[in-house]
Amino acid sequence: MNKEEFKNFGYKFVDWVADYLSEVGKHPVCSPLIPGQVRSKLPSQAPKKGESMEKLFKDFQKKILPGLAHWQHPSWFAYFPANNSPSSILAELLTAGIGAQCMIWKTSPAAAELEEVVLEWLRKMLSLPERMSGVIQDTASTATLVALLTARERATNFESNKNGLKKPLVVYASEEAHSSVEKGAKIAGYGKENIRYIPTDEAFAMIPSKLEEAVVEDRDRGLQPACVVATLGTTSSTAIDPLSPIGKICQKERLWLHVDAAFAGTAAILPEKRWMLEGAEYMDSFVFNPHKWMLTNFDCSAYYVRDPASLIRTFEIHPEYLKTGVDAEVKNFRDWGIQLGRRFRALKLWFVIRSYGVEGLQKIIREHIWLAQKFKDWVEKHDCFELMAPVNLSLVCFRLNDGRGEEDLNRLNQEFLERLNRSGKVFLTHTTLRGKYVLRMAIGQRTTEEKHVREAWELMLSTAEEILK
Amino acid sequence: MNKEEFKNFGYKFVDWVADYLSEVGKHPVCSPLIPGQVRSKLPSQAPKKGESMEKLFKDFQKKILPGLAHWQHPSWFAYFPANNSPSSILAELLTAGIGAQCMIWKTSPAAAELEEVVLEWLRKMLSLPERMSGVIQDTASTATLVALLTARERATNFESNKNGLKKPLVVYASEEAHSSVEKGAKIAGYGKENIRYIPTDEAFAMIPSKLEEAVVEDRDRGLQPACVVATLGTTSSTAIDPLSPIGKICQKERLWLHVDAAFAGTAAILPEKRWMLEGAEYMDSFVFNPHKWMLTNFDCSAYYVRDPASLIRTFEIHPEYLKTGVDAEVKNFRDWGIQLGRRFRALKLWFVIRSYGVEGLQKIIREHIWLAQKFKDWVEKHDCFELMAPVNLSLVCFRLNDGRGEEDLNRLNQEFLERLNRSGKVFLTHTTLRGKYVLRMAIGQRTTEEKHVREAWELMLSTAEEILK
Repeated sequence: MNKEEFKNFGYKFVDWVADYLSEVGKHPVCSPLIPGQVRSKLPSQAPKKGESMEKLFKDFQKKILPGLAHWQHPSWFAYFPANNSPSSILAELLTAGIGAQCMIWKTSPAAAELEEVVLEWLRKMLSLPERMSGVIQDTASTATLVALLTARERATNFESNKNGLKKPLVVYASEEAHSSVEKGAKIAGYGKENIRYIPTDEAFAMIPSKLEEAVVEDRDRGLQPACVVATLGTTSSTAIDPLSPIGKICQKERLWLHVDAAFAGTAAILPEKRWMLEGAEYMDSFVFNPHKWMLTNFDCSAYYVRDPASLIRTFEIHPEYLKTGVDAEVKNFRDWGIQLGRRFRALKLWFVIRSYGVEGLQKIIREHIWLAQKFKDWVEKHDCFELMAPVNLSLVCFRLNDGRGEEDLNRLNQEFLERLNRSGKVFLTHTTLRGKYVLRMAIGQRTTEEKHVREAWELMLSTAEEILK
Repeated sequence: MNKEEFKNFGYKFVDWVADYLSEVGKHPVCSPLIPGQVRSKLPSQAPKKGESMEKLFKDFQKKILPGLAHWQHPSWFAYFPANNSPSSILAELLTAGIGAQCMIWKTSPAAAELEEVVLEWLRKMLSLPERMSGVIQDTASTATLVALLTARERATNFESNKNGLKKPLVVYASEEAHSSVEKGAKIAGYGKENIRYIPTDEAFAMIPSKLEEAVVEDRDRGLQPACVVATLGTTSSTAIDPLSPIGKICQKERLWLHVDAAFAGTAAILPEKRWMLEGAEYMDSFVFNPHKWMLTNFDCSAYYVRDPASLIRTFEIHPEYLKTGVDAEVKNFRDWGIQLGRRFRALKLWFVIRSYGVEGLQKIIREHIWLAQKFKDWVEKHDCFELMAPVNLSLVCFRLNDGRGEEDLNRLNQEFLERLNRSGKVFLTHTTLRGKYVLRMAIGQRTTEEKHVREAWELMLSTAEEILK
């Protein structure tokens, strides 16, 4: 492809993205295709000769697009949002064009320094403790694993790295914690059976006294407690574990306190939501995902640690072929996580924060929270609907409830959700809370407006009427 | 930013990328900036109000660009290449615009199925064994960690995942293996002291008989051998470990055989280089990076396993909020690795393979290998230069040697490398081979032509003359 062709297709693709973003609401939110339908349209071998970009672009639109779920659809209420934004997309274009590999300072000084600066901006925006240092990880799963590994090393005085893990260490998280805690604990060698799932209160938040009991019990059994994962904004219901009492227990028991605020962290840019972070001074590590609610293209997970020395001691490697003359003076982020290779991810975050400004971002987050409150009111006021968890941020957990038995209600709501999604007009997902099948209305897509929430509610009302008939 | 603004800046950025790619050769390959110089130009706080894209773009060019190392520079001979290409960049633009989250089939069916299809194309292109299944990982470091974890679980009958790692397991790799083996072995709980670095022959390839001795010795000591990492194309010198005899040992001793072909794997699309893969039938897992030599933007690492069931059993999680009705029929790639969240990375690989075609890619790889042979000839014919390792692919290890003592030679070559890089005209990196400081001429950047290699050689000759005076 020569320069002119690249430019021409570049313009076409820019136009396509612009149109896609403004018209994504016209697609069915979720693909109606069944497994195998995309694959069946693709040849089983790579072509010998190069093909034209024209043909590729056509195939993309004809064969790939209909098989996508549209995460940027304004009626995307599933999981948590994974937002992009015009400025983030433009930055990703530059990042791809530069094609830099940012494993160490030397291999892209500006990328390393921009990462430092932008994460410091973010730290201040969220009012995280001053002594915390940040690094971009790909996902919160990875960041939580990194925390579990650093906790493991601190608990064994860096012996596991040297001689392997030899005795069971225990990790604690609420029964509502994300699956990445289980996955991370398995990877880091704790083992699934050495995770203690601490009971939660009526708001689905960890009960600190139960944590303390579990720690004491494990010590009595000769086990070694090592790490507590507290969650700000659980995946099922955005429950907020109380950091301050949990932190005090961690301090007393000398346990690593990792805080998973993957979705909810972004809300801490609002002064009125900063109560979540009360007790932040006890945190050893903290993660939140600008790639969820902060309009930054996936992947971009912001990870902060109080003691970078422990982090680095856990991950550092010194092969000859990566030594440079400035290693003593700079941050080599390869030693701050699992991967050696790193994308230039700070650029898009810089573009997003600067183009929206802190106030612009705050406005969007406030709007989502306000929409969720509105939706919550509708649910509460309706006889056939039931609110299933406190609405701390912009997620509303609810279900249909016409008074039938619990098991029947679960079946009813499963059918209700399927019908809603089958319409192609909205996409919601479910969870279970205390065994009850619950719908999750996750509001937070960048372009979601009141009308989309209202349309979703109207669809729910008519679907409910049908299904309850 | 409204649609028109997005389009206008999109066009501008496309133009910028087009110009950058065609003119990147005019920049100094490596940034001459010293630590802190980029940071000092950036404010310490995020702006309150949004700023114009105009201003951002200007700052990008003025403050960020001069601080970059230019990985797409045709005189980039450092590390290994991390290529992009026009079609890959265009695909990344679409990927960013769609903003899909590809953790499971349901959250983007087309992405999951395209990943299956394209990795099957690649498998055939490299002539990997038919029964191997592929998945895209972010980096080879991650893929090697995934292999070490699956090996750990198989060796402990999936007990470590359940109850934690309790007894030392041993991993084997050549003394020339990549640092990711050390890092992965630490993370997976083997411990650094439980890595056996097997001696290499005069070509820096693992000596199979030494591997067998080490395994027997460890068993005699009551330790449990679990995994062997063989390297095709070591980082220091692209040495090729002999798969066939190593594989036979692994089969006999029931050890997981992971093959790290991060850079060299791409060369297996050439029939004349497929000898590297003799013994591939013994591999349990294999990784290579299309993001290195196959013109695909970082990150895109292709990982293949013989037994996906073991892989999935190591990583699977089943939280309620991720359950879907089609889980039994589809591949949910979240269970094929560490992260839950996944980018739509198959798209760029599809674009690259289709736009170049297999023959187009072969032509580029052959050209790089031919250029390396040419450079090798010049080195060998020159009295003051010494070839330091066999040239298996497109990396030439060499040094200045005027007959002085070894220690002085190390100092001389360090000074030689620094002077070359200080010119800004080339960028090379070094390694040590048997304690000898060696320069690495890694040819493989997409746009590197004979003239760039020749200019580098001429610069080396004149610099050598200066330094030897």
